[in-house]
Amino acid sequence: MEQTRIITISREFGSGGRSIGKALAQRLGIAYYDKELVKQVALETGFDPQFVEERGEFAGKTSWLTWIVDQGAGTPGVMNGLNATDFLWTIQREVILRLADKEPCVIVGRCADYILRERKDCLHAFIHADMAFRADRIVRLYGESENSPEKRLQDKDARRRINYKHFTHREWGMCQNYHITLDSGVVGIQRCVDILAWLYGQGREG
Amino acid sequence: MEQTRIITISREFGSGGRSIGKALAQRLGIAYYDKELVKQVALETGFDPQFVEERGEFAGKTSWLTWIVDQGAGTPGVMNGLNATDFLWTIQREVILRLADKEPCVIVGRCADYILRERKDCLHAFIHADMAFRADRIVRLYGESENSPEKRLQDKDARRRINYKHFTHREWGMCQNYHITLDSGVVGIQRCVDILAWLYGQGREG
Repeated sequence: MEQTRIITISREFGSGGRSIGKALAQRLGIAYYDKELVKQVALETGFDPQFVEERGEFAGKTSWLTWIVDQGAGTPGVMNGLNATDFLWTIQREVILRLADKEPCVIVGRCADYILRERKDCLHAFIHADMAFRADRIVRLYGESENSPEKRLQDKDARRRINYKHFTHREWGMCQNYHITLDSGVVGIQRCVDILAWLYGQGREG
Repeated sequence: MEQTRIITISREFGSGGRSIGKALAQRLGIAYYDKELVKQVALETGFDPQFVEERGEFAGKTSWLTWIVDQGAGTPGVMNGLNATDFLWTIQREVILRLADKEPCVIVGRCADYILRERKDCLHAFIHADMAFRADRIVRLYGESENSPEKRLQDKDARRRINYKHFTHREWGMCQNYHITLDSGVVGIQRCVDILAWLYGQGREG
Protein backbone atom coordinates (compact mmCIF):
# COMPACT_ATOMS: atom_id res chain seq x y z
CA MET A 1 0.00 0.00 0.00
CA GLU A 2 1.49 3.31 -1.11
CA GLN A 3 0.63 6.54 0.66
CA THR A 4 -0.97 9.18 -1.53
CA ARG A 5 0.58 12.62 -1.21
CA ILE A 6 -0.63 14.36 -4.34
CA ILE A 7 -3.92 14.59 -6.19
CA THR A 8 -3.97 15.97 -9.72
CA ILE A 9 -7.29 17.12 -11.13
CA SER A 10 -7.87 17.51 -14.84
CA ARG A 11 -11.27 18.79 -15.85
CA GLU A 12 -13.64 19.88 -18.55
CA PHE A 13 -14.33 23.60 -18.45
CA GLY A 14 -17.30 24.39 -16.20
CA SER A 15 -17.44 20.92 -14.62
CA GLY A 16 -16.48 22.20 -11.18
CA GLY A 17 -13.06 20.55 -11.16
CA ARG A 18 -11.44 23.64 -9.68
CA SER A 19 -14.07 23.95 -6.92
CA ILE A 20 -13.62 20.25 -6.17
CA GLY A 21 -9.85 20.68 -5.98
CA LYS A 22 -10.10 23.66 -3.64
CA ALA A 23 -12.60 22.00 -1.32
CA LEU A 24 -10.54 18.82 -1.33
CA ALA A 25 -7.29 20.58 -0.38
CA GLN A 26 -9.13 22.42 2.40
CA ARG A 27 -10.72 19.21 3.69
CA LEU A 28 -7.37 17.37 3.68
CA GLY A 29 -5.42 20.33 5.02
CA ILE A 30 -2.91 20.25 2.15
CA ALA A 31 -1.70 22.86 -0.35
CA TYR A 32 -3.70 23.80 -3.43
CA TYR A 33 -1.97 24.82 -6.64
CA ASP A 34 -3.71 26.49 -9.50
CA LYS A 35 -3.31 30.27 -9.60
CA GLU A 36 -0.32 29.96 -7.27
CA LEU A 37 1.34 27.72 -9.82
CA VAL A 38 0.66 30.30 -12.52
CA LYS A 39 2.29 33.00 -10.39
CA GLN A 40 5.35 30.85 -9.77
CA VAL A 41 5.75 30.03 -13.47
CA ALA A 42 5.30 33.70 -14.38
CA LEU A 43 7.99 34.63 -11.90
CA GLU A 44 10.45 32.07 -13.28
CA THR A 45 9.81 32.74 -16.95
CA GLY A 46 9.32 36.47 -16.79
CA PHE A 47 6.08 36.03 -18.73
CA ASP A 48 2.95 37.92 -17.83
CA PRO A 49 0.64 35.81 -15.58
CA GLN A 50 -2.16 36.26 -18.13
CA PHE A 51 0.01 34.66 -20.80
CA VAL A 52 0.95 31.78 -18.47
CA GLU A 53 -2.70 31.26 -17.51
CA GLU A 54 -3.80 31.02 -21.11
CA ARG A 55 -0.90 29.23 -22.73
CA GLY A 56 -0.34 26.85 -19.83
CA GLU A 57 -3.45 24.90 -20.72
CA PHE A 58 -4.89 26.15 -23.97
CA ALA A 59 -3.69 25.73 -27.51
CA GLY A 60 -4.07 28.55 -30.01
CA LYS A 61 -3.67 32.28 -29.89
CA THR A 62 -6.03 33.85 -27.41
CA SER A 63 -5.03 37.48 -26.95
CA TRP A 64 -2.84 40.30 -28.22
CA LEU A 65 -0.49 39.48 -25.34
CA THR A 66 -0.02 35.91 -26.49
CA TRP A 67 0.72 37.19 -29.97
CA ILE A 68 3.30 39.73 -28.80
CA VAL A 69 5.13 37.24 -26.57
CA ASP A 70 5.25 34.68 -29.37
CA GLN A 71 6.71 37.26 -31.73
CA GLY A 72 9.65 37.81 -29.41
CA ALA A 73 10.12 34.16 -28.66
CA GLY A 74 12.66 33.44 -31.34
CA THR A 75 15.23 35.76 -29.77
CA PRO A 76 18.36 33.63 -29.38
CA GLY A 77 19.69 33.21 -25.90
CA VAL A 78 16.57 34.37 -24.12
CA MET A 79 14.81 31.00 -24.07
CA ASN A 80 17.42 28.60 -25.41
CA GLY A 81 15.92 28.97 -28.87
CA LEU A 82 12.59 27.41 -27.79
CA ASN A 83 9.40 29.13 -28.85
CA ALA A 84 7.34 30.72 -26.09
CA THR A 85 4.88 27.84 -25.70
CA ASP A 86 7.55 25.14 -25.48
CA PHE A 87 9.63 27.27 -23.12
CA LEU A 88 6.57 27.78 -20.93
CA TRP A 89 5.93 24.01 -20.96
CA THR A 90 9.47 23.30 -19.83
CA ILE A 91 9.35 25.71 -16.91
CA GLN A 92 5.81 24.72 -15.95
CA ARG A 93 6.92 21.07 -15.90
CA GLU A 94 9.86 21.89 -13.64
CA VAL A 95 7.66 23.89 -11.25
CA ILE A 96 5.15 21.01 -11.02
CA LEU A 97 7.89 18.43 -10.36
CA ARG A 98 9.34 20.67 -7.66
CA LEU A 99 5.96 21.28 -5.98
CA ALA A 100 5.31 17.53 -5.92
CA ASP A 101 8.63 16.98 -4.16
CA LYS A 102 8.02 19.82 -1.74
CA GLU A 103 4.71 18.95 -0.06
CA PRO A 104 1.42 17.05 -0.24
CA CYS A 105 -0.90 19.04 -2.51
CA VAL A 106 -3.75 19.23 -5.00
CA ILE A 107 -2.70 20.42 -8.46
CA VAL A 108 -5.40 21.47 -10.91
CA GLY A 109 -4.83 21.26 -14.67
CA ARG A 110 -1.62 21.90 -16.62
CA CYS A 111 -1.08 18.26 -17.65
CA ALA A 112 0.11 17.50 -14.11
CA ASP A 113 -1.31 13.95 -14.45
CA TYR A 114 1.12 13.35 -17.32
CA ILE A 115 4.07 15.19 -15.78
CA LEU A 116 3.75 13.18 -12.55
CA ARG A 117 2.75 9.87 -14.19
CA GLU A 118 5.80 7.94 -12.92
CA ARG A 119 5.31 8.84 -9.26
CA LYS A 120 3.67 6.23 -7.06
CA ASP A 121 2.31 8.74 -4.55
CA CYS A 122 -0.20 10.43 -6.87
CA LEU A 123 -3.88 9.98 -7.49
CA HIS A 124 -4.91 11.29 -10.92
CA ALA A 125 -8.53 12.39 -11.30
CA PHE A 126 -10.56 13.76 -14.21
CA ILE A 127 -13.84 15.66 -13.72
CA HIS A 128 -16.39 16.06 -16.50
CA ALA A 129 -20.10 16.72 -16.93
CA ASP A 130 -22.60 17.03 -19.74
CA MET A 131 -23.03 20.25 -21.68
CA ALA A 132 -26.30 21.31 -20.01
CA PHE A 133 -24.86 21.07 -16.48
CA ARG A 134 -21.71 22.97 -17.43
CA ALA A 135 -23.52 25.65 -19.43
CA ASP A 136 -25.90 26.30 -16.57
CA ARG A 137 -22.99 26.40 -14.14
CA ILE A 138 -20.82 28.90 -16.01
CA VAL A 139 -23.75 31.21 -16.60
CA ARG A 140 -24.72 31.04 -12.93
CA LEU A 141 -21.25 31.26 -11.37
CA TYR A 142 -19.22 33.30 -13.79
CA GLY A 143 -22.09 35.49 -14.93
CA GLU A 144 -21.48 34.56 -18.53
CA SER A 145 -23.60 36.83 -20.68
CA GLU A 146 -23.03 35.17 -24.00
CA ASN A 147 -25.87 33.84 -26.08
CA SER A 148 -24.15 30.49 -26.46
CA PRO A 149 -22.27 29.22 -23.42
CA GLU A 150 -22.22 25.83 -25.18
CA LYS A 151 -20.03 27.28 -27.93
CA ARG A 152 -17.61 28.67 -25.36
CA LEU A 153 -17.44 25.28 -23.63
CA GLN A 154 -16.78 23.46 -26.89
CA ASP A 155 -14.04 25.91 -27.77
CA LYS A 156 -12.36 25.67 -24.36
CA ASP A 157 -12.54 21.86 -24.37
CA ALA A 158 -11.12 21.66 -27.90
CA ARG A 159 -8.19 23.90 -26.97
CA ARG A 160 -7.42 21.94 -23.81
CA ARG A 161 -7.61 18.70 -25.81
CA ILE A 162 -5.18 19.98 -28.47
CA ASN A 163 -2.77 21.33 -25.88
CA TYR A 164 -2.81 18.05 -23.93
CA LYS A 165 -2.29 15.98 -27.06
CA HIS A 166 0.54 18.20 -28.26
CA PHE A 167 2.61 17.84 -25.10
CA THR A 168 1.62 14.36 -23.88
CA HIS A 169 0.73 12.46 -27.08
CA ARG A 170 -2.25 11.12 -25.18
CA GLU A 171 -5.99 11.54 -25.61
CA TRP A 172 -7.57 13.98 -23.17
CA GLY A 173 -10.41 12.25 -21.29
CA MET A 174 -9.35 8.65 -22.01
CA CYS A 175 -10.06 6.98 -18.68
CA GLN A 176 -6.89 4.90 -18.86
CA ASN A 177 -4.89 8.06 -18.13
CA TYR A 178 -6.58 8.59 -14.76
CA HIS A 179 -7.13 6.52 -11.63
CA ILE A 180 -10.63 7.89 -11.27
CA THR A 181 -12.94 9.96 -13.45
CA LEU A 182 -16.23 11.41 -12.22
CA ASP A 183 -19.27 13.00 -13.83
CA SER A 184 -19.81 15.90 -11.44
CA GLY A 185 -23.29 16.58 -12.85
CA VAL A 186 -24.53 13.10 -11.91
CA VAL A 187 -22.35 12.31 -8.90
CA GLY A 188 -22.61 15.84 -7.48
CA ILE A 189 -19.73 18.20 -6.73
CA GLN A 190 -19.84 17.61 -2.97
CA ARG A 191 -19.77 13.83 -3.38
CA CYS A 192 -16.82 14.08 -5.79
CA VAL A 193 -14.95 15.77 -2.92
CA ASP A 194 -16.11 13.04 -0.51
CA ILE A 195 -14.90 10.21 -2.77
CA LEU A 196 -11.53 11.80 -3.54
CA ALA A 197 -10.89 12.70 0.10
CA TRP A 198 -11.72 9.12 1.14
CA LEU A 199 -9.46 7.66 -1.55
CA TYR A 200 -6.62 9.97 -0.54
CA GLY A 201 -6.87 8.66 3.00
CA GLN A 202 -6.92 5.05 1.81
CA GLY A 203 -3.69 5.28 -0.16
CA ARG A 204 -2.89 3.45 -3.39
CA GLU A 205 -3.20 -0.29 -3.78
CA GLY A 206 -0.59 -0.54 -6.50
CA MET B 1 -32.10 13.63 -6.39
CA GLU B 2 -32.87 10.54 -8.45
CA GLN B 3 -32.78 7.08 -6.94
CA THR B 4 -30.30 4.70 -8.56
CA ARG B 5 -31.75 1.30 -9.39
CA ILE B 6 -29.25 -0.05 -11.87
CA ILE B 7 -25.47 -0.14 -12.13
CA THR B 8 -23.85 -1.05 -15.44
CA ILE B 9 -20.22 -2.10 -15.41
CA SER B 10 -18.09 -2.03 -18.53
CA ARG B 11 -14.54 -3.27 -18.13
CA GLU B 12 -11.22 -4.08 -19.65
CA PHE B 13 -10.51 -7.79 -19.74
CA GLY B 14 -8.79 -8.95 -16.55
CA SER B 15 -9.45 -5.71 -14.64
CA GLY B 16 -11.77 -7.40 -12.14
CA GLY B 17 -14.92 -5.68 -13.40
CA ARG B 18 -16.91 -8.88 -13.18
CA SER B 19 -15.72 -9.61 -9.60
CA ILE B 20 -16.58 -6.04 -8.65
CA GLY B 21 -20.04 -6.39 -10.18
CA LYS B 22 -20.75 -9.65 -8.36
CA ALA B 23 -19.54 -8.38 -4.98
CA LEU B 24 -21.49 -5.16 -5.48
CA ALA B 25 -24.76 -6.94 -6.26
CA GLN B 26 -24.27 -9.16 -3.24
CA ARG B 27 -23.49 -6.21 -0.98
CA LEU B 28 -26.55 -4.28 -2.21
CA GLY B 29 -28.80 -7.33 -2.25
CA ILE B 30 -29.83 -6.80 -5.86
CA ALA B 31 -29.76 -9.03 -8.94
CA TYR B 32 -26.58 -9.63 -10.95
CA TYR B 33 -26.72 -10.16 -14.71
CA ASP B 34 -23.86 -11.51 -16.72
CA LYS B 35 -24.07 -15.25 -17.48
CA GLU B 36 -27.78 -15.14 -16.63
CA LEU B 37 -28.24 -12.56 -19.33
CA VAL B 38 -26.40 -14.78 -21.79
CA LYS B 39 -28.70 -17.69 -20.94
CA GLN B 40 -31.79 -15.54 -21.43
CA VAL B 41 -30.59 -14.25 -24.80
CA ALA B 42 -29.66 -17.78 -25.88
CA LEU B 43 -33.15 -18.94 -24.95
CA GLU B 44 -34.83 -16.17 -26.90
CA THR B 45 -32.68 -16.39 -30.00
CA GLY B 46 -32.19 -20.12 -30.12
CA PHE B 47 -28.43 -19.52 -30.40
CA ASP B 48 -25.94 -21.61 -28.49
CA PRO B 49 -24.89 -19.87 -25.22
CA GLN B 50 -21.25 -20.07 -26.34
CA PHE B 51 -22.10 -18.06 -29.47
CA VAL B 52 -24.03 -15.47 -27.42
CA GLU B 53 -21.17 -15.21 -24.93
CA GLU B 54 -18.62 -14.55 -27.64
CA ARG B 55 -20.59 -12.47 -30.09
CA GLY B 56 -22.43 -10.47 -27.46
CA GLU B 57 -19.30 -8.50 -26.64
CA PHE B 58 -16.56 -9.36 -29.08
CA ALA B 59 -16.12 -8.45 -32.70
CA GLY B 60 -14.64 -10.96 -35.11
CA LYS B 61 -14.98 -14.66 -35.66
CA THR B 62 -13.82 -16.62 -32.66
CA SER B 63 -14.80 -20.26 -33.12
CA TRP B 64 -16.15 -22.85 -35.54
CA LEU B 65 -19.54 -22.35 -33.88
CA THR B 66 -19.57 -18.65 -34.66
CA TRP B 67 -18.71 -19.44 -38.24
CA ILE B 68 -21.47 -22.03 -38.62
CA VAL B 69 -24.15 -19.79 -37.09
CA ASP B 70 -23.12 -16.93 -39.37
CA GLN B 71 -23.38 -19.15 -42.42
CA GLY B 72 -27.00 -19.90 -41.64
CA ALA B 73 -27.85 -16.35 -40.70
CA GLY B 74 -29.06 -15.22 -44.08
CA THR B 75 -31.98 -17.66 -44.08
CA PRO B 76 -35.04 -15.50 -44.79
CA GLY B 77 -37.77 -15.43 -42.17
CA VAL B 78 -35.65 -16.88 -39.39
CA MET B 79 -34.11 -13.61 -38.25
CA ASN B 80 -35.97 -11.00 -40.31
CA GLY B 81 -33.11 -10.96 -42.79
CA LEU B 82 -30.62 -9.65 -40.20
CA ASN B 83 -27.23 -11.29 -39.98
CA ALA B 84 -26.52 -13.28 -36.83
CA THR B 85 -24.56 -10.54 -35.06
CA ASP B 86 -27.13 -7.83 -35.68
CA PHE B 87 -29.97 -10.16 -34.73
CA LEU B 88 -28.15 -11.04 -31.52
CA TRP B 89 -27.66 -7.31 -30.77
CA THR B 90 -31.38 -6.66 -31.23
CA ILE B 91 -32.45 -9.44 -28.87
CA GLN B 92 -29.71 -8.65 -26.34
CA ARG B 93 -30.84 -5.02 -26.32
CA GLU B 94 -34.45 -6.04 -25.68
CA VAL B 95 -33.44 -8.38 -22.86
CA ILE B 96 -31.37 -5.63 -21.19
CA LEU B 97 -34.20 -3.08 -21.46
CA ARG B 98 -36.59 -5.62 -19.97
CA LEU B 99 -34.27 -6.52 -17.09
CA ALA B 100 -33.82 -2.83 -16.27
CA ASP B 101 -37.59 -2.43 -16.07
CA LYS B 102 -38.00 -5.56 -14.00
CA GLU B 103 -35.78 -5.01 -10.97
CA PRO B 104 -32.78 -3.21 -9.46
CA CYS B 105 -29.65 -4.93 -10.73
CA VAL B 106 -26.00 -4.88 -11.74
CA ILE B 107 -25.41 -5.59 -15.43
CA VAL B 108 -21.88 -6.38 -16.59
CA GLY B 109 -20.78 -5.68 -20.16
CA ARG B 110 -22.81 -5.99 -23.38
CA CYS B 111 -22.96 -2.24 -24.06
CA ALA B 112 -25.59 -1.90 -21.31
CA ASP B 113 -24.28 1.61 -20.56
CA TYR B 114 -25.25 2.66 -24.09
CA ILE B 115 -28.51 0.73 -24.22
CA LEU B 116 -29.70 2.29 -20.95
CA ARG B 117 -28.17 5.74 -21.54
CA GLU B 118 -31.53 7.59 -21.49
CA ARG B 119 -32.63 6.21 -18.12
CA LYS B 120 -32.20 8.46 -15.12
CA ASP B 121 -31.97 5.61 -12.61
CA CYS B 122 -28.65 4.18 -13.81
CA LEU B 123 -25.08 4.60 -12.70
CA HIS B 124 -22.64 3.71 -15.49
CA ALA B 125 -19.18 2.56 -14.41
CA PHE B 126 -16.04 1.53 -16.30
CA ILE B 127 -13.25 -0.50 -14.70
CA HIS B 128 -9.72 -0.62 -16.12
CA ALA B 129 -6.18 -1.33 -15.00
CA ASP B 130 -2.71 -1.35 -16.46
CA MET B 131 -1.38 -4.30 -18.43
CA ALA B 132 0.87 -5.67 -15.67
CA PHE B 133 -1.96 -5.84 -13.11
CA ARG B 134 -4.32 -7.51 -15.55
CA ALA B 135 -1.77 -9.96 -16.92
CA ASP B 136 -0.83 -11.04 -13.41
CA ARG B 137 -4.50 -11.37 -12.51
CA ILE B 138 -5.57 -13.54 -15.44
CA VAL B 139 -2.60 -15.85 -15.00
CA ARG B 140 -3.31 -16.17 -11.28
CA LEU B 141 -7.10 -16.48 -11.39
CA TYR B 142 -7.85 -18.13 -14.69
CA GLY B 143 -4.73 -20.26 -14.76
CA GLU B 144 -3.72 -18.86 -18.12
CA SER B 145 -0.84 -20.90 -19.42
CA GLU B 146 0.02 -18.80 -22.42
CA ASN B 147 3.44 -17.31 -22.87
CA SER B 148 1.99 -13.90 -23.54
CA PRO B 149 -1.05 -12.96 -21.45
CA GLU B 150 -0.42 -9.37 -22.63
CA LYS B 151 -1.16 -10.39 -26.20
CA ARG B 152 -4.41 -12.03 -25.14
CA LEU B 153 -5.42 -8.89 -23.24
CA GLN B 154 -4.66 -6.64 -26.19
CA ASP B 155 -6.67 -8.88 -28.49
CA LYS B 156 -9.67 -9.03 -26.14
CA ASP B 157 -9.62 -5.26 -25.58
CA ALA B 158 -9.39 -4.59 -29.30
CA ARG B 159 -12.36 -6.82 -30.04
CA ARG B 160 -14.48 -5.27 -27.31
CA ARG B 161 -13.55 -1.81 -28.58
CA ILE B 162 -14.53 -2.65 -32.16
CA ASN B 163 -17.79 -4.27 -31.06
CA TYR B 164 -18.69 -1.26 -28.88
CA LYS B 165 -17.87 1.22 -31.65
CA HIS B 166 -19.84 -0.76 -34.22
CA PHE B 167 -23.07 -0.74 -32.23
CA THR B 168 -22.82 2.51 -30.29
CA HIS B 169 -20.69 4.77 -32.52
CA ARG B 170 -18.88 5.77 -29.34
CA GLU B 171 -15.30 5.31 -28.17
CA TRP B 172 -14.87 2.53 -25.60
CA GLY B 173 -13.19 3.93 -22.48
CA MET B 174 -13.93 7.63 -23.12
CA CYS B 175 -14.78 8.83 -19.63
CA GLN B 176 -17.61 11.03 -20.88
CA ASN B 177 -19.65 7.86 -21.52
CA TYR B 178 -19.55 6.85 -17.84
CA HIS B 179 -20.47 8.48 -14.55
CA ILE B 180 -17.44 6.97 -12.89
CA THR B 181 -14.34 5.13 -14.11
CA LEU B 182 -11.87 3.44 -11.77
CA ASP B 183 -8.39 1.98 -12.11
CA SER B 184 -8.84 -1.22 -10.11
CA GLY B 185 -5.09 -1.81 -9.94
CA VAL B 186 -4.46 1.47 -8.12
CA VAL B 187 -7.76 1.94 -6.28
CA GLY B 188 -8.03 -1.75 -5.36
CA ILE B 189 -10.90 -4.10 -6.23
CA GLN B 190 -12.44 -4.01 -2.76
CA ARG B 191 -12.42 -0.22 -2.67
CA CYS B 192 -14.03 -0.05 -6.13
CA VAL B 193 -16.91 -2.04 -4.59
CA ASP B 194 -16.98 0.31 -1.59
CA ILE B 195 -17.18 3.43 -3.75
CA LEU B 196 -19.84 2.06 -6.11
CA ALA B 197 -21.97 0.72 -3.25
CA TRP B 198 -21.77 4.09 -1.50
CA LEU B 199 -22.69 5.97 -4.69
CA TYR B 200 -25.62 3.61 -5.31
CA GLY B 201 -26.97 4.46 -1.88
CA GLN B 202 -26.52 8.20 -2.44
CA GLY B 203 -28.55 8.30 -5.64
CA ARG B 204 -27.95 10.57 -8.62
CA GLU B 205 -27.61 14.32 -8.35
CA GLY B 206 -28.82 14.99 -11.88
